[in-house]
Amino acid sequence: MEVMKVLHMNKGDGETSYANNSAVQGKIITTAKPVIEEAILGILCETFPESIGIADLGCSSGPNSLLVISEIIDIIHAKCRNLGRPSPEFRVSLNDLPGNDFNSIFESLPAFFKKQKQEKGIGFGRCYISGVAGSFYDRLFPDKSLHFVHSSSSLHWLSQAKTVATKKLKEKLVRFCGEIKIRKVPPALETNATPAALNKGKIYISKSSPQCVLDAYSLQFQNNFLIFLKSRAAEMVAGGRMVLSLMGRRSIDPTTEESCYQWELLAQALMSLVTERLIEEEKLDSFNAPYYAPCPEELKMAIQKEGSFIIDRLGHFEIDWDGGVEELTNTTLLPLSRGQRVAKTVRAVVESMFELHFGKAMMDLLFARYAEMVDDYLSKNRAKYINLVISIIKKDN
Amino acid sequence: MEVMKVLHMNKGDGETSYANNSAVQGKIITTAKPVIEEAILGILCETFPESIGIADLGCSSGPNSLLVISEIIDIIHAKCRNLGRPSPEFRVSLNDLPGNDFNSIFESLPAFFKKQKQEKGIGFGRCYISGVAGSFYDRLFPDKSLHFVHSSSSLHWLSQAKTVATKKLKEKLVRFCGEIKIRKVPPALETNATPAALNKGKIYISKSSPQCVLDAYSLQFQNNFLIFLKSRAAEMVAGGRMVLSLMGRRSIDPTTEESCYQWELLAQALMSLVTERLIEEEKLDSFNAPYYAPCPEELKMAIQKEGSFIIDRLGHFEIDWDGGVEELTNTTLLPLSRGQRVAKTVRAVVESMFELHFGKAMMDLLFARYAEMVDDYLSKNRAKYINLVISIIKKDN
Repeated sequence: MEVMKVLHMNKGDGETSYANNSAVQGKIITTAKPVIEEAILGILCETFPESIGIADLGCSSGPNSLLVISEIIDIIHAKCRNLGRPSPEFRVSLNDLPGNDFNSIFESLPAFFKKQKQEKGIGFGRCYISGVAGSFYDRLFPDKSLHFVHSSSSLHWLSQAKTVATKKLKEKLVRFCGEIKIRKVPPALETNATPAALNKGKIYISKSSPQCVLDAYSLQFQNNFLIFLKSRAAEMVAGGRMVLSLMGRRSIDPTTEESCYQWELLAQALMSLVTERLIEEEKLDSFNAPYYAPCPEELKMAIQKEGSFIIDRLGHFEIDWDGGVEELTNTTLLPLSRGQRVAKTVRAVVESMFELHFGKAMMDLLFARYAEMVDDYLSKNRAKYINLVISIIKKDN
Repeated sequence: MEVMKVLHMNKGDGETSYANNSAVQGKIITTAKPVIEEAILGILCETFPESIGIADLGCSSGPNSLLVISEIIDIIHAKCRNLGRPSPEFRVSLNDLPGNDFNSIFESLPAFFKKQKQEKGIGFGRCYISGVAGSFYDRLFPDKSLHFVHSSSSLHWLSQAKTVATKKLKEKLVRFCGEIKIRKVPPALETNATPAALNKGKIYISKSSPQCVLDAYSLQFQNNFLIFLKSRAAEMVAGGRMVLSLMGRRSIDPTTEESCYQWELLAQALMSLVTERLIEEEKLDSFNAPYYAPCPEELKMAIQKEGSFIIDRLGHFEIDWDGGVEELTNTTLLPLSRGQRVAKTVRAVVESMFELHFGKAMMDLLFARYAEMVDDYLSKNRAKYINLVISIIKKDN
């Protein structure tokens, strides 16, 4: 699966759209705001650029896209007012994959600018917002053009997922950052087993996954994250800061429930459709989510190996699977169950990939089944996502 | 009508999409290529920037959006190869109104980059393409960030159309550039007649239009074009160049057929629907196309008044109403009549505005009627658009 061509949040503003089902991601942005504020004030302490380059990577579409930018501008504007100096020129880049619904972001810009001007008056500096379509696992921006980079709920998406890491990927990583230390690279990595047979009945790391699957995922994340850091290092000015917020785990063990149980239940929902012969078993076995929830040590290791950044802060917070947000359905005004809310949130994110692999016709049934399973699980368990937040500073060259 | 919110080329890639009906605009770009080449080589003669800022204003969507950029990159790349020096970093901005189909441009970027790399190999410099949504009758880009600005088939669109120029607009213009000299401002400008009654049965300047309508259009164009120049002057580096290509006329008289007859026929097609009581007469009377085809003198005057640019070249070429391009319909493989081709081209451009004003239900019938009228007209007349091309240089400050 070419993630670059396939992955996008559900477009538009309908019932299953990401725009209407991204309260969890919005809550994550709001929760991480103090870290963003600290990082931005850190930049402004060191230097006060007349023109400030800001990028949001994996901006998606819907209310969250401009929420981050709005927060960042607010912080800078308030600081300027405190200091009695004019706002800088804001050069804002909103990035996501080419399949993202940039049209809906652009259509909301006139209202955004109007609101900024109303709130901030003539003291509001010029603000130029552009859309940049491409993978953040590659260069996206000109050299030394960015002061602040933000990414939320995006970096847990891999450029690809393989249950068997190729020899080439392993060699590439060793070349790039020396022998991978997180665990010794196991011989199973170059197994002869067919990939699908390795992670039978699962779509992500699971308690039943063999070690080689765990390692392949970890290697893929390391590879992606190193390229991400290297690309941003070239694009950022010295002293520039980056705040990254992504799904993760606290434990070294990637099979803990907090790290992967939302995928486990989705695999169970798929399996129930396999049992009813609505989906072929081979289809389920051959799907691997291009996702990885790293532990803090994995982030640290990659940042140290890449070498361009200093870690300023690394923490985590918990977030309810449904964001703890009560919602009413648009159509019936009946409250949804927690399972239904979780299913809608997950569907808005993964449907583009699932639809392509399992067929459009299965989607309503799959996510209805998933909602039931989530409700059942939540009735017996306390289920939270772990969200890692890291703030790093670009070193002087 | 808020043109900013309404005007966009027909989206997607269907039968009536702009992507499939923009051969005329493509031909205009190709015809103007020597002027673009001359301007770019002019920039590279003076200075050789390591990073070159390029903007295409009114990029629309479909094959033409990346055609211009591709041509510009080819010219710079070939020059670099001749000189034996590496390509600069390309910072490319694609601009159009927020309603433009940026999604389809972004989706075509991976294939575009792949082709560039294949054709140009490792000598191809880094190229960053971003989308910028907003009116070019306002600031769009940071100060002094652009070396080359291009706009084709866009600047004849006004920010708004009024058949009566307001006192405020007149005062604004007089303040900005002194008394308008093209003709003495007629008293009719501040008429008490209702606007709709002034241009009865017409949707643009026509032989039957009163002088105040002609003046209102001319003033609106002057106002828009001055703001356009002023905005670009701030965004461009000294020695930067701009090539603008737009519909125009050769004569001072704005009522000549070459300037407005495509609108005359469209008004006739609408009138035929009024006669059949399918459209209310008031609807027709109250529609004024936010369009103006200036004469070279009007461009010159505005550029001289604004004062930041030197005119390097000003010319025009003729282009057939159907671009002289033979097309087959996608569905039937039957050749279309010239009138049908013209109607499809015009529909792809104006439908967003017409649909809003006259109703979606009327569109098929209106453009079928229009196609017949164009066929009839072309059987007796030689009909060409006049396309003005102007190349200007940003003065040193």
